[in-house]
Amino acid sequence: MPKIFTYQQLFSFSKNIFLKIGCSESDAQIAAQSLLAADIKGVDSHGVARLSGYVRLWEAKRVNAKPEIKIIHGTPSTATVNGDAGLGLVVAPFAMNIAIEKAKQCGTGWVSVKNSNHFGIAGAHAMMALQNDMIGIAMTNASALVAPTFSTEKMLGTNPIAVAIPAGEEPPFVADFATTTAANGKLEILQRKNAEMPTGWAQTKEGEPSTDPHALKSGGALLPLGGDREHGSHKGYALGAIVDIFSAILSGANYGPWVPPFPAYIAMPQNMPGEGVGHFFGAMRMDAFRPAADFKLHMDKWIQRFRSAKTIKGEKRVYIPGDIEREMEEERMQEGIELLQPVIDDLKSLGEKFGLTLN
Amino acid sequence: MPKIFTYQQLFSFSKNIFLKIGCSESDAQIAAQSLLAADIKGVDSHGVARLSGYVRLWEAKRVNAKPEIKIIHGTPSTATVNGDAGLGLVVAPFAMNIAIEKAKQCGTGWVSVKNSNHFGIAGAHAMMALQNDMIGIAMTNASALVAPTFSTEKMLGTNPIAVAIPAGEEPPFVADFATTTAANGKLEILQRKNAEMPTGWAQTKEGEPSTDPHALKSGGALLPLGGDREHGSHKGYALGAIVDIFSAILSGANYGPWVPPFPAYIAMPQNMPGEGVGHFFGAMRMDAFRPAADFKLHMDKWIQRFRSAKTIKGEKRVYIPGDIEREMEEERMQEGIELLQPVIDDLKSLGEKFGLTLN
Repeated sequence: MPKIFTYQQLFSFSKNIFLKIGCSESDAQIAAQSLLAADIKGVDSHGVARLSGYVRLWEAKRVNAKPEIKIIHGTPSTATVNGDAGLGLVVAPFAMNIAIEKAKQCGTGWVSVKNSNHFGIAGAHAMMALQNDMIGIAMTNASALVAPTFSTEKMLGTNPIAVAIPAGEEPPFVADFATTTAANGKLEILQRKNAEMPTGWAQTKEGEPSTDPHALKSGGALLPLGGDREHGSHKGYALGAIVDIFSAILSGANYGPWVPPFPAYIAMPQNMPGEGVGHFFGAMRMDAFRPAADFKLHMDKWIQRFRSAKTIKGEKRVYIPGDIEREMEEERMQEGIELLQPVIDDLKSLGEKFGLTLN
Repeated sequence: MPKIFTYQQLFSFSKNIFLKIGCSESDAQIAAQSLLAADIKGVDSHGVARLSGYVRLWEAKRVNAKPEIKIIHGTPSTATVNGDAGLGLVVAPFAMNIAIEKAKQCGTGWVSVKNSNHFGIAGAHAMMALQNDMIGIAMTNASALVAPTFSTEKMLGTNPIAVAIPAGEEPPFVADFATTTAANGKLEILQRKNAEMPTGWAQTKEGEPSTDPHALKSGGALLPLGGDREHGSHKGYALGAIVDIFSAILSGANYGPWVPPFPAYIAMPQNMPGEGVGHFFGAMRMDAFRPAADFKLHMDKWIQRFRSAKTIKGEKRVYIPGDIEREMEEERMQEGIELLQPVIDDLKSLGEKFGLTLN
């Protein structure tokens, strides 16, 4: 079995899996697109490697394959959406489209979502705004792995924020980052290598600094961006908190330590105060602030100036957020997507379960 | 001369100085309020310590004491404001009020500002939303002191973000932070103490890690939140960049290395692409997403749960963003505001220039 697959192979396989669990044709299409957006951009942790995880959530009846996603509250520039326990991969594009439609009408659109699930990579949803000459914003809360500054308790998810900004001749600016120093996937890479972890990534169960990549698994916690108080962890904690509040307190989803976990084998938290996972989306028309042509002209100039900033000796370039993922996408669209053997094995057994072949 | 002053003493003195440079009665009132919001909350670097700096900008004709602040573009949920080179301390509340009015009409309001100046502390403006049962957002760009990841060039300001979120019985959540690991003021404290600086705060002229608190003064740069690539500095860089783009590319202000400096003795950048300093403000009605009472109930629960999170041994408490500044405000309102002798001397000579006494 080859280790390299085309985008189309993985897309078709994922779409067929989503069809098999009962998604409609269009939902399966959207879910596979959302999922593959991660693989194609090189965010391997959030793509087909998670496909069996979504299926297990469906088997555990935590995901509804035929959701009736509904607007339950709103104003001209806002909406609150009930995802009806649908796949976040489907609920998120639905909500982002509402934000875009609101922005067409009154300049900006803002949508908070409850009763959803893991939505894949935030950047893919934020980028939906670009083709409409809008800035796109996407964020989500997630189950608690991160300790606030001075705490030993896991209270926040890695709570990512994505902001996509259109330019003119230049490719868009696309920032998409967890509000932690490092994501769990980076710890797993170090575990496999049996290597030391940099300080500031995770702490022990007692809240002490750690260089052991197993710290999180051993009852410790990931750390907010900044790492410790001296290096600004209170700022990373505030950012993660803002994502949690916009995603869940505005919408009625679960928050803090009550956000449901992605792995279906982990029990649900007790006394949950809301429904499902929460997200927050925004869309702002460029021409709600100035003529779009002026915006694009200056955004191009901004990008060109930052890209040409002097580099530290030994460093090749100063990146614009989104450069690395865009270049990876170009490469993988041509040369295919290489998967690790455990991921291939996982997809294979998933295929066998549903009578599908990965080819 | 006493070293401790009442809020009212410093407020009246500042207001009178603003009147002396030609501000209207109401603008002088607003400017003094914005300025004192920093002193009272313990952000000593941004309060009366900067008063003479604002006056020097006015003397250098970089600040217009009688601005005609105008809306120059807009939609139902957005506006772009030309600050007419006014004091940022006055322009910012003007713009934030527009955001609040827009939110009353259509759920949310978003205002980008060009042709302004230093606006004091971001948190004070974001907090204007609270009394209207709204979430408030404020950010600003600033002159370049910060190097993007992998660069030796100073390309971004400390570009702060403030988010103020109302609660019910609990005090509000108010986050207000620079998008750098540490602010310049913290380096100055270490310089006075002749102490080492933690790594991750600033780099040398060549872009090497430094523990010398004079690194910035010696041609180096402050570092984005995260410090270095391994600790997520690309995320702090992206955050600072987003603040710059929302504040200046949306509005038509200067951006990146072209943002005008606060000290009037520093020459203006060459070939500036915009007008003045840029800001960005937002206001979101809670009840644009769900009934305000429900929001407040869950925000209280959020705050109570985080405040009661287990602490690391030796740490007294887990803070909610805004706790420290609010407690300082209570203390200073009762016991007064202690100023350093150089600040008192500075205010004294400012008073002599305008025939005013600080008492």
